[in-house]
Amino acid sequence: MTTFPDSHKDLLDAPVASLTTISADGFPQSTLVWFLHDDGELKISLNGARLKTKNLIKRPQVSLLILDFSNPQRYLDVRGTAVVSADEGGELAKKVGAKYNADLSTRDRPGEQRLAVTIEPNGVYAVDLTR
Amino acid sequence: MTTFPDSHKDLLDAPVASLTTISADGFPQSTLVWFLHDDGELKISLNGARLKTKNLIKRPQVSLLILDFSNPQRYLDVRGTAVVSADEGGELAKKVGAKYNADLSTRDRPGEQRLAVTIEPNGVYAVDLTR
Repeated sequence: MTTFPDSHKDLLDAPVASLTTISADGFPQSTLVWFLHDDGELKISLNGARLKTKNLIKRPQVSLLILDFSNPQRYLDVRGTAVVSADEGGELAKKVGAKYNADLSTRDRPGEQRLAVTIEPNGVYAVDLTR
Repeated sequence: MTTFPDSHKDLLDAPVASLTTISADGFPQSTLVWFLHDDGELKISLNGARLKTKNLIKRPQVSLLILDFSNPQRYLDVRGTAVVSADEGGELAKKVGAKYNADLSTRDRPGEQRLAVTIEPNGVYAVDLTR
């Protein structure tokens, strides 16, 4: 279980975060993604067929920047390693779907696999430039 | 001069963007930064003594995610190469300071150099999930 600073714990329930992976040509790639704070960990449900997912499996170094959309000067920067596993029974997809009131399985084509990504942080930086 | 899609041109004047560099250990590092759309290019004024700046000089592959803080589903993702030069006469720092109504030179200690970073994009991705 990862410890997050009390000052930024509300951001663990934020709607989106910027996930950065590293592409095959060595460039960082950032996209806004849905995420879930579950069992003390930051988790993401990804479709295994996406290029972003393939990049992440090959180069598991990621950054997850959790933004406060009501205050651009406040955010949580999590740097870590992405641990990817099969999402057995679609358990994580269901939990993420419950947070967002959405059915993630409708986004997958036949034969595509849904994966569970857990971020194991090696650094958690809580930033608040207003303080 | 870089061409940005009309649908997202307003974001070129947004207050902050997430700049991702790659650290010495190969992990992406994202921080929210001030930026300026100037002469058709995306520019950032950085203090040369900062670790982030040193990372950027060694590994110029960057991503700049320009967020719409009024709509988390809309953003501009710029991937490219950072070209770093001395900010002669503090010209860029002054322009950035004018955007933010701030004096950037007060952030520099004696002997520290202010650098001008221009992002040369190899990819510009305009995302709007609400459309």
